[in-house]
Amino acid sequence: MKIGIADTTFSRIDMGKIAIEELRKISSLKYERYTVPGIKDLPIAVKKLLEGGCDIAISLGWVGKTQKDLLSYLTLSIGLMIVQLSTGKHVIDVTIHEDEADNEKDLLMIAENRIREHVRNAVDLLLNPKKLQKMAGTGQRQGYPDVGPILR
Amino acid sequence: MKIGIADTTFSRIDMGKIAIEELRKISSLKYERYTVPGIKDLPIAVKKLLEGGCDIAISLGWVGKTQKDLLSYLTLSIGLMIVQLSTGKHVIDVTIHEDEADNEKDLLMIAENRIREHVRNAVDLLLNPKKLQKMAGTGQRQGYPDVGPILR
Amino acid sequence: MKIGIADTTFSRIDMGKIAIEELRKISSLKYERYTVPGIKDLPIAVKKLLEGGCDIAISLGWVGKTQKDLLSYLTLSIGLMIVQLSTGKHVIDVTIHEDEADNEKDLLMIAENRIREHVRNAVDLLLNPKKLQKMAGTGQRQGYPDVGPILR
Amino acid sequence: MKIGIADTTFSRIDMGKIAIEELRKISSLKYERYTVPGIKDLPIAVKKLLEGGCDIAISLGWVGKTQKDLLSYLTLSIGLMIVQLSTGKHVIDVTIHEDEADNEKDLLMIAENRIREHVRNAVDLLLNPKKLQKMAGTGQRQGYPDVGPILR
Amino acid sequence: MKIGIADTTFSRIDMGKIAIEELRKISSLKYERYTVPGIKDLPIAVKKLLEGGCDIAISLGWVGKTQKDLLSYLTLSIGLMIVQLSTGKHVIDVTIHEDEADNEKDLLMIAENRIREHVRNAVDLLLNPKKLQKMAGTGQRQGYPDVGPILR
Repeated sequence: MKIGIADTTFSRIDMGKIAIEELRKISSLKYERYTVPGIKDLPIAVKKLLEGGCDIAISLGWVGKTQKDLLSYLTLSIGLMIVQLSTGKHVIDVTIHEDEADNEKDLLMIAENRIREHVRNAVDLLLNPKKLQKMAGTGQRQGYPDVGPILR
Repeated sequence: MKIGIADTTFSRIDMGKIAIEELRKISSLKYERYTVPGIKDLPIAVKKLLEGGCDIAISLGWVGKTQKDLLSYLTLSIGLMIVQLSTGKHVIDVTIHEDEADNEKDLLMIAENRIREHVRNAVDLLLNPKKLQKMAGTGQRQGYPDVGPILR
Repeated sequence: MKIGIADTTFSRIDMGKIAIEELRKISSLKYERYTVPGIKDLPIAVKKLLEGGCDIAISLGWVGKTQKDLLSYLTLSIGLMIVQLSTGKHVIDVTIHEDEADNEKDLLMIAENRIREHVRNAVDLLLNPKKLQKMAGTGQRQGYPDVGPILR
Repeated sequence: MKIGIADTTFSRIDMGKIAIEELRKISSLKYERYTVPGIKDLPIAVKKLLEGGCDIAISLGWVGKTQKDLLSYLTLSIGLMIVQLSTGKHVIDVTIHEDEADNEKDLLMIAENRIREHVRNAVDLLLNPKKLQKMAGTGQRQGYPDVGPILR
Repeated sequence: MKIGIADTTFSRIDMGKIAIEELRKISSLKYERYTVPGIKDLPIAVKKLLEGGCDIAISLGWVGKTQKDLLSYLTLSIGLMIVQLSTGKHVIDVTIHEDEADNEKDLLMIAENRIREHVRNAVDLLLNPKKLQKMAGTGQRQGYPDVGPILR
C-alpha cells in the first residue's frame, strides 16, 4: 500500500518533508510525493497520485491572509472533494492558514503538529479504521491541543 | 435495509453513539458506522457506506466557530449534495455548530435532540415517507423546539 | 404530463398544499408530491420525482435567517442546478426566506403569492413557453408586485 | 450556424430583443430564443439551446440588489460554467445588476451597451476568433467605456 | 509538447504576449493561444486548448475590484478546477486583481513578474517536476518577492 503526499513551493514550511518523516516513524508504508506551485494546483496532483496507485493521499496546503486567499481555499476544498468522490479514496486535507499565529515560531509548531497528527489519521484510515471509531466524539484537534469530549 | 452512520473524532460529543441509541430504540434496522477525522472527510465516508449496501445515511458533523470553518461547512454540504445526486439516495446532514450555544450543557442538549430527531427523519424517509408528508409545513425544528405552522 | 412538487416539514407554511391548489385551479395536469425534512434534502427528492416520470418540478424551500442558513440556501441552489443539468428538465426554485417580512401575515402573503405565480410559470414552461417569451423583460416578480419594464 | 439567446421575464429590460436587434445588424446568423422566469432557470435553457443545435449561446440575466441575489448570481455563474464544460461550447454571460446605476436611464444605457458588445463578442468567437486575439489586453469593457491598455 | 495560453480582452495588460515572450526565452516548446472576452470565458477556452493537443495550459485572468468580481473569480477558479480534474492535466491559474496595487506602474510590474514566474512553473511541471520538489516549502511567491522558508 502507498500514500500520496502533495505539497507546494508556496508554503513557507517544508510540509512534505515533515509528513514523510512522520510516516517513516510510524509505519513502513511506501509513499509518492508530488510538489506543485500553489494550493489550486493540489487537487489535480492528488488525483494523479491516486490514479497512479496510491491508496490514500495527504494534501499539504499553505493559505495567505486575504479574502481572495479564502476563495482559493474554498476552491481547493471543493477540488479535493471532487477528487475523493470520483476516485473513491480518502484525501486528508492539511491546510495551514498564515494568520493562525502572529509569529513564525508558533506557525511552525502548529504546522508540524497538524501534519504529524494527520499523517497518523491517514495511516489509521488505511490500516486501522476501528481505532478512529474508538476516538469518535473525543474532540481531537490537529495543530492545537485536543479539546476533549463533552460528556453526557 | 441498512442505515449508514458517519461521524468524526473532531466532534466533542459522541454523535454516532447517540444516533445508534436512537435507531435501536425506534427500529430494528441494521446499521454500519464509519468514523473519520473531520467534516471534510464525511462525504467520501458516506459514499462508501451507500455503495457498500446502506439505503440511506446520516452524516454527523461538528463545525468550529471561524469563517474558515464556515467554508469547510459549505464544502461538506456541497460534497453531501454530490453524493446524494450520484448515488440516488438520501443523506441526512446533521451538523452542530460550536457557536450555537455558549455553554457545553446547552450544546449537548441541542446536539442530542437534533441527532435523535434526524434519526427518526431518516427512518421515516426509508420506511414511512407518507408520515413526513403529513407534517409538511408544520415548522419542525431539530435541536430546538418546533416553531409550528403559520396558518391561513 | 406530470409535475413534481417537493416540500419540507421545516417550512412554517404548507407550501406543497398551496402549490397543488393552484395547479388544480389552472390545469388538469397530474402531480406527484415528495416531502422531506429540510432544504438540503430537496435536490435528491426532486431528482427522484423527475426520474420517476415528472416532466418538470417545483422545489418549495423555507430558509432561516442566519449566515449558516444562507450557505444551506447556496447548497440547495447548486444542488437544484446539478439536477436540472443532469436530467435536462426545468426545476422551478421557490424559496421563502424567513426574514423577508417581519410578521407572519406578510410572510404568508408573500409565500402564497410566490408559490402560485411559480406554479403558473412551471405550467407555462411545460405547455406554453411562447407566453413567457411575450413577457420577457417586463419585470415580473413572484411574491411581490411586478415592477414593470424600463422602456426604451 | 446558429446563436442561442436566453433571457428572463424577471428582467426590467427586454434584453433578448436588444440582442436580436444587434445580431441582425452585424450578421445574418440564425438565432433561437428561450425565455424563462429568472436567472436560476437560465443554465438549463442555455443547455437545451446548445443541444438543440446552437453553436454558441448568450445568457441574458438581471440580478437584484440583496445578498441573496448575489448567491443566486453565483449559482447562475457556476451553472453556466458546467453547461460550457459539458457541451464544449461558449456561453457568453451578460448580467445586469440592478445596483449598477441609481436611475433607470443609466441602467438602460449600461444594459443596452453591454448586450450589444457581447453579441459582437459572441459573433467574433464563432466566426472571427483572431479578431479577439488582436484586442487581447486592451481593457475592453461591456456596459461602460473601455479603460484601455496599460502599456509597457 | 505544447503549452496552451488563454487570455482576455478585458485585461489591461497584454498578458498573453508576456507569457509567450517568457516561454520563448526559456524553452523551445510550442504554444497555442486563445483569447476570450473575460475571465468566465477562460475555462472553456482552456478545455478546448487541452483537448486540442496542449499538454498543460496557463490561464491569464484580470479581475475587477467589486464583490461581484470576486464571485466571478470564484467561478473562474471552480471552472479551472473542473477542467483540470476532467482532462487530467495541469492548468496554472495566473490572476491579477485590479486592487493589488494603487497605480498602473506597480500593477504592470506585479503582472509581468507573476506571468513570467508561472510560465517557468508550467514548463517545470511539464519537463522537470523534480525541480519543483527541491523548492518545496521555500515560500515562493509570484508577482511579489519570495518570502522564504520558515526553518526548523
